[in-house]
Amino acid sequence: MTESGKLYGLGLGPGDPELLTLKAYRILQAVPVVAYPASPDGRCISRSIVAEYLKPTQIEIPMVLPFKLELSSQPYYDKMAEDLAAHLSAGRDVAVLCEGDPFFFGTFMYTFNRLSPRFPTEVVPGVSSVMASAGMLGRPLTYRNDVFMAIMGTLPAEVIADRLRGADAAVIMKLGRNFAKVCEVLKEVGLFDRALYIERATTTRQNIVPIQDVDPTQVPYFAMIVIPSQWEWRNG
Amino acid sequence: MTESGKLYGLGLGPGDPELLTLKAYRILQAVPVVAYPASPDGRCISRSIVAEYLKPTQIEIPMVLPFKLELSSQPYYDKMAEDLAAHLSAGRDVAVLCEGDPFFFGTFMYTFNRLSPRFPTEVVPGVSSVMASAGMLGRPLTYRNDVFMAIMGTLPAEVIADRLRGADAAVIMKLGRNFAKVCEVLKEVGLFDRALYIERATTTRQNIVPIQDVDPTQVPYFAMIVIPSQWEWRNG
Repeated sequence: MTESGKLYGLGLGPGDPELLTLKAYRILQAVPVVAYPASPDGRCISRSIVAEYLKPTQIEIPMVLPFKLELSSQPYYDKMAEDLAAHLSAGRDVAVLCEGDPFFFGTFMYTFNRLSPRFPTEVVPGVSSVMASAGMLGRPLTYRNDVFMAIMGTLPAEVIADRLRGADAAVIMKLGRNFAKVCEVLKEVGLFDRALYIERATTTRQNIVPIQDVDPTQVPYFAMIVIPSQWEWRNG
Repeated sequence: MTESGKLYGLGLGPGDPELLTLKAYRILQAVPVVAYPASPDGRCISRSIVAEYLKPTQIEIPMVLPFKLELSSQPYYDKMAEDLAAHLSAGRDVAVLCEGDPFFFGTFMYTFNRLSPRFPTEVVPGVSSVMASAGMLGRPLTYRNDVFMAIMGTLPAEVIADRLRGADAAVIMKLGRNFAKVCEVLKEVGLFDRALYIERATTTRQNIVPIQDVDPTQVPYFAMIVIPSQWEWRNG
């Protein structure tokens, strides 16, 4: 009987290929099968991060997902998991590529939850865009006893406002068409003047714009608002 | 006139030397001067993570800090910054080692705030123990629209309880002697049964213990409580 292959969830970091960990780099080059999410129009952001590291001998599996993930997406995940299970059952290790960290607002969890009960599985944590964005903005994010929050721009305005009132530092992710709504909330809770804006942190297309100059109709999904701690500025 | 050296804040990740990024590894081996926080008893945790990568030709600067950081620690930071400034002014690049990420509850910020106005400075983000702990526990941390919080165990019980009531997923850091207090809070807000415990994630001394079996008198500073999202478990 063939021994099962191992499933890896590889955190690739926020976009700069040099922000892969040594471990993710080693595993990426050692596995025979590499899988990655792909959008219906064929874009594979995670693959593009590591394109220079892949080998022509590796089997590649684009996992095509609908643009908008819903409960109705479950058959897609089921199908994807079965495609990977076939390789794992045949004894081939499979690395699933994940932007950022696999367990922090990623898509790997849907694969993990289906396959980790059946196959040996290892998660390789990655640099999150949360920390990378603060680093690229050159603004320390959290000090000492700060309460930090990561809040999604897709939430209702009143939920975002309520949570931000209890945060010392925060990031707001998944902006896109929610940007204008989020800015209104920031003004309401008195945080707009502290908010910083960055698109596609650490990539070749990174773009830092003063938040009041951002065109709300042009905000990409991979944009982030960072509200750094005020601690150091208060206490020197 | 000598051109200034460059200051790097190098995120080393949570403890496994293989979780350095390719970028941090490259810079670490290229710089002539390596600085790192040291406790008064001589322990240098960040140096121990990368000990195997350092070269005998590199100048090492232990930055001795008091055990408990207070506002009164400022003269320590001022002195440390001047030590590094001397090398930078002489044209030598200096890498400051930081466990986890330099801008996420780190000590690098105190150096950054003093030296970045005077010298070219670059932050290299690192894998945070937040994401690494969830990965090692094998439990996805956050899904979809979850509100995520990082909360310090050093805060008053009522603040921790209040914030946790608005969180879908959370980590509680800086446990140590605050562990028993934090467990009481978790019971009060109904989260104790969902809470997971891990010490020194990704290091050779990593230890995962069911939270009800933890001896509150033996909890190290580098322990973490992880409260993963319930989303997938509710919705399949």
